[in-house]
Amino acid sequence: MKSLFAIALVLCSVTAFSADGMAKWQKGKGWGWVWGKQDEVGSLNEMTDVSRAAALRLATQGKVYDLGVIYDRTSYKWPGHNPGEIISFRTPEGVKRQQDLPALVNENPSRTAWHSCALFMNDNVATQIDGLGHATEGEDDHWYNGFREREWGGNWGVRKCDATTIPPIVARGIVIDVAGWKSVDALPSNYAITPEDVEAALKKQNTQLRPGDIVLIRTGTLRHWGESGDDEKGLIKQHDSAGINLEAARWLVEQQGAMMIGSDTSGLEYVPKDAEASEYRRKYKSFMPVHNYLLIEQGVHIGEFHNLEQLARDRVYEFCYMAATAKIKGTASGFALRPIALK
Amino acid sequence: MKSLFAIALVLCSVTAFSADGMAKWQKGKGWGWVWGKQDEVGSLNEMTDVSRAAALRLATQGKVYDLGVIYDRTSYKWPGHNPGEIISFRTPEGVKRQQDLPALVNENPSRTAWHSCALFMNDNVATQIDGLGHATEGEDDHWYNGFREREWGGNWGVRKCDATTIPPIVARGIVIDVAGWKSVDALPSNYAITPEDVEAALKKQNTQLRPGDIVLIRTGTLRHWGESGDDEKGLIKQHDSAGINLEAARWLVEQQGAMMIGSDTSGLEYVPKDAEASEYRRKYKSFMPVHNYLLIEQGVHIGEFHNLEQLARDRVYEFCYMAATAKIKGTASGFALRPIALK
Amino acid sequence: MKSLFAIALVLCSVTAFSADGMAKWQKGKGWGWVWGKQDEVGSLNEMTDVSRAAALRLATQGKVYDLGVIYDRTSYKWPGHNPGEIISFRTPEGVKRQQDLPALVNENPSRTAWHSCALFMNDNVATQIDGLGHATEGEDDHWYNGFREREWGGNWGVRKCDATTIPPIVARGIVIDVAGWKSVDALPSNYAITPEDVEAALKKQNTQLRPGDIVLIRTGTLRHWGESGDDEKGLIKQHDSAGINLEAARWLVEQQGAMMIGSDTSGLEYVPKDAEASEYRRKYKSFMPVHNYLLIEQGVHIGEFHNLEQLARDRVYEFCYMAATAKIKGTASGFALRPIALK
Amino acid sequence: MKSLFAIALVLCSVTAFSADGMAKWQKGKGWGWVWGKQDEVGSLNEMTDVSRAAALRLATQGKVYDLGVIYDRTSYKWPGHNPGEIISFRTPEGVKRQQDLPALVNENPSRTAWHSCALFMNDNVATQIDGLGHATEGEDDHWYNGFREREWGGNWGVRKCDATTIPPIVARGIVIDVAGWKSVDALPSNYAITPEDVEAALKKQNTQLRPGDIVLIRTGTLRHWGESGDDEKGLIKQHDSAGINLEAARWLVEQQGAMMIGSDTSGLEYVPKDAEASEYRRKYKSFMPVHNYLLIEQGVHIGEFHNLEQLARDRVYEFCYMAATAKIKGTASGFALRPIALK
Repeated sequence: MKSLFAIALVLCSVTAFSADGMAKWQKGKGWGWVWGKQDEVGSLNEMTDVSRAAALRLATQGKVYDLGVIYDRTSYKWPGHNPGEIISFRTPEGVKRQQDLPALVNENPSRTAWHSCALFMNDNVATQIDGLGHATEGEDDHWYNGFREREWGGNWGVRKCDATTIPPIVARGIVIDVAGWKSVDALPSNYAITPEDVEAALKKQNTQLRPGDIVLIRTGTLRHWGESGDDEKGLIKQHDSAGINLEAARWLVEQQGAMMIGSDTSGLEYVPKDAEASEYRRKYKSFMPVHNYLLIEQGVHIGEFHNLEQLARDRVYEFCYMAATAKIKGTASGFALRPIALK
Repeated sequence: MKSLFAIALVLCSVTAFSADGMAKWQKGKGWGWVWGKQDEVGSLNEMTDVSRAAALRLATQGKVYDLGVIYDRTSYKWPGHNPGEIISFRTPEGVKRQQDLPALVNENPSRTAWHSCALFMNDNVATQIDGLGHATEGEDDHWYNGFREREWGGNWGVRKCDATTIPPIVARGIVIDVAGWKSVDALPSNYAITPEDVEAALKKQNTQLRPGDIVLIRTGTLRHWGESGDDEKGLIKQHDSAGINLEAARWLVEQQGAMMIGSDTSGLEYVPKDAEASEYRRKYKSFMPVHNYLLIEQGVHIGEFHNLEQLARDRVYEFCYMAATAKIKGTASGFALRPIALK
Repeated sequence: MKSLFAIALVLCSVTAFSADGMAKWQKGKGWGWVWGKQDEVGSLNEMTDVSRAAALRLATQGKVYDLGVIYDRTSYKWPGHNPGEIISFRTPEGVKRQQDLPALVNENPSRTAWHSCALFMNDNVATQIDGLGHATEGEDDHWYNGFREREWGGNWGVRKCDATTIPPIVARGIVIDVAGWKSVDALPSNYAITPEDVEAALKKQNTQLRPGDIVLIRTGTLRHWGESGDDEKGLIKQHDSAGINLEAARWLVEQQGAMMIGSDTSGLEYVPKDAEASEYRRKYKSFMPVHNYLLIEQGVHIGEFHNLEQLARDRVYEFCYMAATAKIKGTASGFALRPIALK
Repeated sequence: MKSLFAIALVLCSVTAFSADGMAKWQKGKGWGWVWGKQDEVGSLNEMTDVSRAAALRLATQGKVYDLGVIYDRTSYKWPGHNPGEIISFRTPEGVKRQQDLPALVNENPSRTAWHSCALFMNDNVATQIDGLGHATEGEDDHWYNGFREREWGGNWGVRKCDATTIPPIVARGIVIDVAGWKSVDALPSNYAITPEDVEAALKKQNTQLRPGDIVLIRTGTLRHWGESGDDEKGLIKQHDSAGINLEAARWLVEQQGAMMIGSDTSGLEYVPKDAEASEYRRKYKSFMPVHNYLLIEQGVHIGEFHNLEQLARDRVYEFCYMAATAKIKGTASGFALRPIALK
């Protein structure tokens, strides 16, 4: 059997790069379904030894920023996901009382025992990277590269483009601090970040994008996460609806070559006010057009709930981004993730 | 409230290093409970900007090795943990049939929908790093730094030293290929790796250890993981009992300054044959003396089920090791992890 | 091994009954820990072939009332319990797509497949009977009959008095329609039902209690359950705090010999207003003194969320009550139960 | 909204019974889809006040037999279902340590606390009644009464014929002790019970069937359940493949009017030896033709893992059968059930 462990490694065999160092990206067009009929990786195929080595050279100081937020049973999440519980499964007292493993427990003079937890969770919580199978469209419910539900669905998650197909990501990372450019703590509810906003923020912070970047948009929402995002005051929910509009997503991918786009909200994209939602869906043909565009059409992964507060405070806008999702077969997203920014 | 996000960052303030670059490690003694009464991090406190920058300089080629194994419902695990299921929670067809969110689903001409999964899992499965609260000992069921069950236990996992306290790890990584030194595909069942074995294997591969290393011991067990470790032939179980003995663990920590020790088995340490188990437990006072020693006494984390096959094939024995565990409060271990080795 | 299946049956061997037909109940005292050191059944030990035959004779018409409410993911529950999900685990389409059992699925010309669900639930939801291990008190955390946590706790539920020890209940059932007596649809929030209320309601409906009865108190709360208790309007929560006070519980057990007491609320007992809660707890020494009294002191089970609406509409106050809890080891309560009233 | 609680009650309005007391059953034909397009109840519609009253008159002694088996994490089940865990969710010590509800816990001089459990389970375990939506057939994946997956499937279980639609069952129950007739402890593996076997066993025990009966077939398998069915010796698995063949099912329904058929195995029906399975599936067009016939074609529920040992020992072949399934929306079967036989 061919080992899956080698998937991330064979990427280095991609050859014939354009002047911008990209193998398949075209200015004005982005990517699309250009990596072959069986591809499950999308634009992250652009990573090479050369690109990773270049990204690593950005990390000269050895300073690390932890972009992950802590998840627990109280953490804010989209209400359509199943709730989560982390439950003590084995405890030292329980192990000793239950006596289900008597030799193990009783024949040890040190009275050794252990803790473990049973988790019930959703695969779309806390800091995450949406897999290319997360969003579907059409009567045939297809996702990236045309994988259709009637062939690649199943009872135990998606059978194409699950989170195990997301390679370890090592790439140049850029924060675009839109909240900072606007001089607000966090963008207001339902704020649509446009291409003009993005360009202005980049200009203010004097950052140039390059094809192959991991682009992270800061709305400021996660300044309200606190210890584990219980959102008792409703502040996460309030700011979480700010995000990029479809035009900004297109500009980042087609004009700038963003290889992944993320932000500090649960869904990256602008969410309209309730009163405007029907018209919005009619116009954009979807309740989440940026997801349709990035995940399905372009094969560009989405980063969510990335904590960018410390980077913004330190004005660190360029860094080496690294993330490796939990490797659980079938999962639609890599969840409870701890990406890091290295400087 | 003081932000937890900054935990990893404050480490750079540790000063007054010894000649070997370590702040607290002492040759012949290792660490222990030396980082203050409230410490939950242990030897990983030794990481600094300087040490991380040095580790990153090992990654000149940009080559990445994925050390994580894929987990699914069939994966091999210690039978004392709860089984796992990854279940399709929302599917495009289900969302459209269920009609629980009618506006979202029906008012979108593109017929957009989504996949998500509900997970039921144990926090000690697949590739992982054991937290310092995983193992306990004594009538008071204490773990690292003296945290006791009656104060820091709870219903939702451990309340000190959970996996969220494991900082992102960026350090020099070393593979010690014991199976390769023995010229076997995988070490036999119940093979005890001694300090002499470790020294001989290091000598053969011409590798020098340094204080602060992440030391990974290769038994060869994971050559049998296959796609997701269903172990239908029993080969993982067979080889999984090979591992280091207590003397090897002591040598690595006290003489060499290993900051974390891992391997390609479920528990790192040597497991005796059933017939010898009672005597072993009496002699070593525990059924898992290496866990007691590393996690509780020394504050040294343990890496488990790290896939070292590709590194061994390429004879890459020194690299930059990076791992960042899932950030879920209460968890005893960082599970389904995807550490990477950068060269 | 002595079969547990026979537990319900050996009860018929209890002899030496008092004039009221009760073996151990004493007027003015009730029961208590009177059934022997190993007893896990409490007052339900009073059931005998004779008492069951008498109860069955009340059911001459063959009419059945279903007292259970439907539970789903949206159902109202005490927020301290874990949430519930019922998830399609195997579906006909999923089975056929997943191809994990190819012979089973493909070698059948009828294209047969199946549905099954995975459940994540709490054992204290919907219609239920609290087991005698549900409530604990004291520094030693003991429950009924002095079973202590340090001996009979465990990781997988209680090891004494779990729901499997609740025998099938066949007994005379009585509804006391307090809401009907008050001529209200449902009792107001935080209404404390006193012994005087109970006596007046009994008098109005011309019902006599007898030792050994299952007494069900109607507050009217479940008229708001609807299809599955989603409580979008907050009406269940509003009325759910009405219930009997400790004095009423004592009167029912000590003066009348109630063998089990239930109601149409989540907790049977009166809950004080927030402003009065601290004083109440100080006075009654517990935040749920009726639970302490019935479950721990008296060994009397509590019935919760029993739907009494149809019985009240039909003015059926006396009937044969039957209930048999789910037989799951360790559970603290018999949940999602469907008791019936036979007339 | 029309209350669902009344479903069981309106059955008494069915009129125009045939001479055998059945409303819709026809000798030589059975039932089928005869109860109207929206019906989810099937043959259990035959229950009336009159039939229930007659059944209750069989219970003159007040003796109760508990037909349910105990379920826990170790219990035998068909391997295709998800495993189960019953986990202590709140414990008195945990509640006090966790301090998430400080007022509740600290302001009570009695130091009151509580136990509750989180359950992860399958809805097809232990003693159960299969719902009419459990089995499907055809390219359109339809079940009883033509309900099709594309309309009535969903993410949260079946949306027609879930276990909440199974009315409380009160009916004449009959045990047919095939193992007793054969003078064996339990029938051998893969034993096919034929109509002739059933007739001979009935004759030996001098029992007459009547239309509307709950017919329970004893193979003797559950003599090996023990405390909670861990099946360490493999005896349950060994005998569990004995069961009725399709011809016996047809005879019981079409000639005798059995309203429900159950047994003491996990699936009621005969399972062929592996070597004969392919031919069997070709001949019978399904891997479980008795399920197709009873659940889909006839609308007859199936009882599984009913413990009949005590009834057989006491030679009680006729009794009042009562069962009321857990009332959980979406579930394909009523599980962990405790039916009772009253004599």
